[in-house]
Amino acid sequence: MLRCLFVFVCLLHTMLGVMGAVTPKPIIINGTYINPELGKYHARLRSIARSCLQIKKNHGATQDGMYILTTESGTYYQTFCDMTTAGGGWTLVASVHENNINGKCSFGDRWSSQQGNDQSLPEGEASWANTATFGSAEGSTSDDYKNPGYYDISAQDVSVWHVPNNEQLKKWTSSAILRYHTESQFLKEHGGNLYHLFKKYPVRFGAGQCKSDMGPSSSVVYDTGDKDSTSNLYGPSVRNEFESGFITFRVFNTDQSAMAMCSGIKPSGCNTQHYCIGGGGFFAQPEQCGDFTALDLKETFKQPTQSAVLLFYR
Amino acid sequence: MLRCLFVFVCLLHTMLGVMGAVTPKPIIINGTYINPELGKYHARLRSIARSCLQIKKNHGATQDGMYILTTESGTYYQTFCDMTTAGGGWTLVASVHENNINGKCSFGDRWSSQQGNDQSLPEGEASWANTATFGSAEGSTSDDYKNPGYYDISAQDVSVWHVPNNEQLKKWTSSAILRYHTESQFLKEHGGNLYHLFKKYPVRFGAGQCKSDMGPSSSVVYDTGDKDSTSNLYGPSVRNEFESGFITFRVFNTDQSAMAMCSGIKPSGCNTQHYCIGGGGFFAQPEQCGDFTALDLKETFKQPTQSAVLLFYR
Amino acid sequence: MLRCLFVFVCLLHTMLGVMGAVTPKPIIINGTYINPELGKYHARLRSIARSCLQIKKNHGATQDGMYILTTESGTYYQTFCDMTTAGGGWTLVASVHENNINGKCSFGDRWSSQQGNDQSLPEGEASWANTATFGSAEGSTSDDYKNPGYYDISAQDVSVWHVPNNEQLKKWTSSAILRYHTESQFLKEHGGNLYHLFKKYPVRFGAGQCKSDMGPSSSVVYDTGDKDSTSNLYGPSVRNEFESGFITFRVFNTDQSAMAMCSGIKPSGCNTQHYCIGGGGFFAQPEQCGDFTALDLKETFKQPTQSAVLLFYR
Repeated sequence: MLRCLFVFVCLLHTMLGVMGAVTPKPIIINGTYINPELGKYHARLRSIARSCLQIKKNHGATQDGMYILTTESGTYYQTFCDMTTAGGGWTLVASVHENNINGKCSFGDRWSSQQGNDQSLPEGEASWANTATFGSAEGSTSDDYKNPGYYDISAQDVSVWHVPNNEQLKKWTSSAILRYHTESQFLKEHGGNLYHLFKKYPVRFGAGQCKSDMGPSSSVVYDTGDKDSTSNLYGPSVRNEFESGFITFRVFNTDQSAMAMCSGIKPSGCNTQHYCIGGGGFFAQPEQCGDFTALDLKETFKQPTQSAVLLFYR
Repeated sequence: MLRCLFVFVCLLHTMLGVMGAVTPKPIIINGTYINPELGKYHARLRSIARSCLQIKKNHGATQDGMYILTTESGTYYQTFCDMTTAGGGWTLVASVHENNINGKCSFGDRWSSQQGNDQSLPEGEASWANTATFGSAEGSTSDDYKNPGYYDISAQDVSVWHVPNNEQLKKWTSSAILRYHTESQFLKEHGGNLYHLFKKYPVRFGAGQCKSDMGPSSSVVYDTGDKDSTSNLYGPSVRNEFESGFITFRVFNTDQSAMAMCSGIKPSGCNTQHYCIGGGGFFAQPEQCGDFTALDLKETFKQPTQSAVLLFYR
Repeated sequence: MLRCLFVFVCLLHTMLGVMGAVTPKPIIINGTYINPELGKYHARLRSIARSCLQIKKNHGATQDGMYILTTESGTYYQTFCDMTTAGGGWTLVASVHENNINGKCSFGDRWSSQQGNDQSLPEGEASWANTATFGSAEGSTSDDYKNPGYYDISAQDVSVWHVPNNEQLKKWTSSAILRYHTESQFLKEHGGNLYHLFKKYPVRFGAGQCKSDMGPSSSVVYDTGDKDSTSNLYGPSVRNEFESGFITFRVFNTDQSAMAMCSGIKPSGCNTQHYCIGGGGFFAQPEQCGDFTALDLKETFKQPTQSAVLLFYR
């Protein structure tokens, strides 16, 4: 009986025979996929969902790796799910990668501007608050990355990984120089993701003042590293300008230049260009314009600027 | 009996068990998908076709939204289908998005040139007549977009939507400031799509003269707006240089600078840089070089340059 | 009995009924796909594999065209398989396309640098040895292309096609001005693909000397053209600087400027910028910086610089 059952089921997929005739062909024999790669593909497809958290919750997935997601509108895409950290269910939605720390809002600065420092473009590429997508999950330590999940997923928390440039996917976890996540559910108050958060707190030159117009901040829980290693990411001369153990969004420096994200910290000073990244398309000091702003100008070692910043939602 | 039937059918997809063994798992129970997102994916896949018109005709689809298409060669891609306007069956194949009206043939000007105004590149990026693709359907109001349908679909008519930048897909129809389509079947005479039309009428500096070498023009039927609102898209001082209620392709201005498309109008004058968009890689007046040419120089309000121009085929 | 069988199998895919209910719908009637495009898609999916060679070996595919591949991590992608040349099984993994021979490490030079000639970026984009991907298979004669197979596939040999720019996929074979492949299995010694080869032999300014630090070279077998037509690709004044009938990777010129690939030849001289392509982000002579280096400066006809270089693995 079982044998019979699979004879039926096997006759699903097809091949192109002579004269273009399309006839079904078996894909399963005796309960096993003839092509194991098709089996793996079907396993991924079976758990298709709006987020890695849903894949975890509804389909019991437990392994880190690539999964298939869909937006509300039905755009299908692939990305990496972290299914293990702090209960898992984290969707990789973006990476900020600095391809040229000397290039100032030049090609490759998709999280600030690729148009040069330009006062007429105060929001620059505007990637933080639009639906443009670019790059690929497997390439996210070699290039900027943003997938539809960035604007589509309804989430509560973020997780951030600093992974050395060009590291291959299977080594991300072990190679990361810093990994942490929030548990405060702060995104619930800001539309459920960074797309909506940055609509509310625009990353735009001149849209606010240092300190008084700082956006949301949340405490973090460390997965790799701690408060001290966070502090060491940034230059010694500015370490008295922030508190470690937080993540903060949309800040302004002394000049009203806007930055998108301060990874691992909450600023108390106004030289945010030395410890916050991303930004608008104009900086009063042109040498600060770029995906990694002016991180390089103060740092004593190269790790932070030579690592991509991977952003996850849950 | 029915119950039995579905027990059989359910055993299709698989999961990765211990030791990497790939065994089938049910996807349907009692006639219902266990995972509704998989059900929606299969529904989209079931209607896969070369165009939205085929999806409409052969599979009876009636809802606007994302569908799955294939090229003749078998490249699969996703795009938005307008299944309601004037009978539906419209495939979104491209969008022209101006990311920086002050950038003159700078980064992001994929429908003119990203190399700066350069006489040695008279066709610029050549996107109007090549098979390069870029962007995504959901991001097409935030970035330039071109999918394989642009060169693959065999069509008769075009539809054009002017949608405010960064508008989300579900609000495109209601937010559009102008929507119209042709019913003249003019594409039949020009190879069935814009790729072939522009092979015949190259968008190349110096390849022709104003008026005498104007490419195809077709009258249009309005879906949002009318002749007056079309006229109001452009600067008051040039409104006597065109007639509303048309769409025109490949024109030259006084300087023999080439433009690809005059949306909503048929030019009678030669300052086409103020009411036609797209272009080659060289303009005799450098300030005209860009995806949106010199629209900004004459306009009295910002709507046209702050809206993406979405192109559909049927 | 057969009829009965297909009644069962047919009830797989689904449609979105009223109220969003997702119920299965037949996809096959009497052993034939209702939608032939779905049949073709399933045929492609049935043979999903890590490389075109596996598709050929394990699934008996014999036709050139688009297939579906997967990386080890489970990133799915589409590319062109050459299933006929010298036994077939060749996977298209990349194309080097020169969009602007006058642009020197400008936008579009993804196989050298898009940042301008810059000594602080000796590896430029680093595309030869990272996991960034870009472009599309069908667009690979109109734009640079690199898919996940470039770094994921474990191969032994390469095949190279020089195809005129903007040629459509179905005409690639007949239009190619030069086609050849290796049979030496040289990639086995270098990690199984060019990604690993270039990790070992970095394409970096100053990382070595002309001649003494030349990377791997292999003899080739011609599929279109011969040693003479290879020689004619390059300028007459430099033809005494190389031997035809080879392919060579990672060379330096007199100035220690690095190039990635010398197509069809093995250099014996040091003006490699005139017959080798790709490169790092800095050239001692700025006019040599670009995907096609200084090919233009010495050539007598335009074919080589107006053809894309397609790279296949087997």
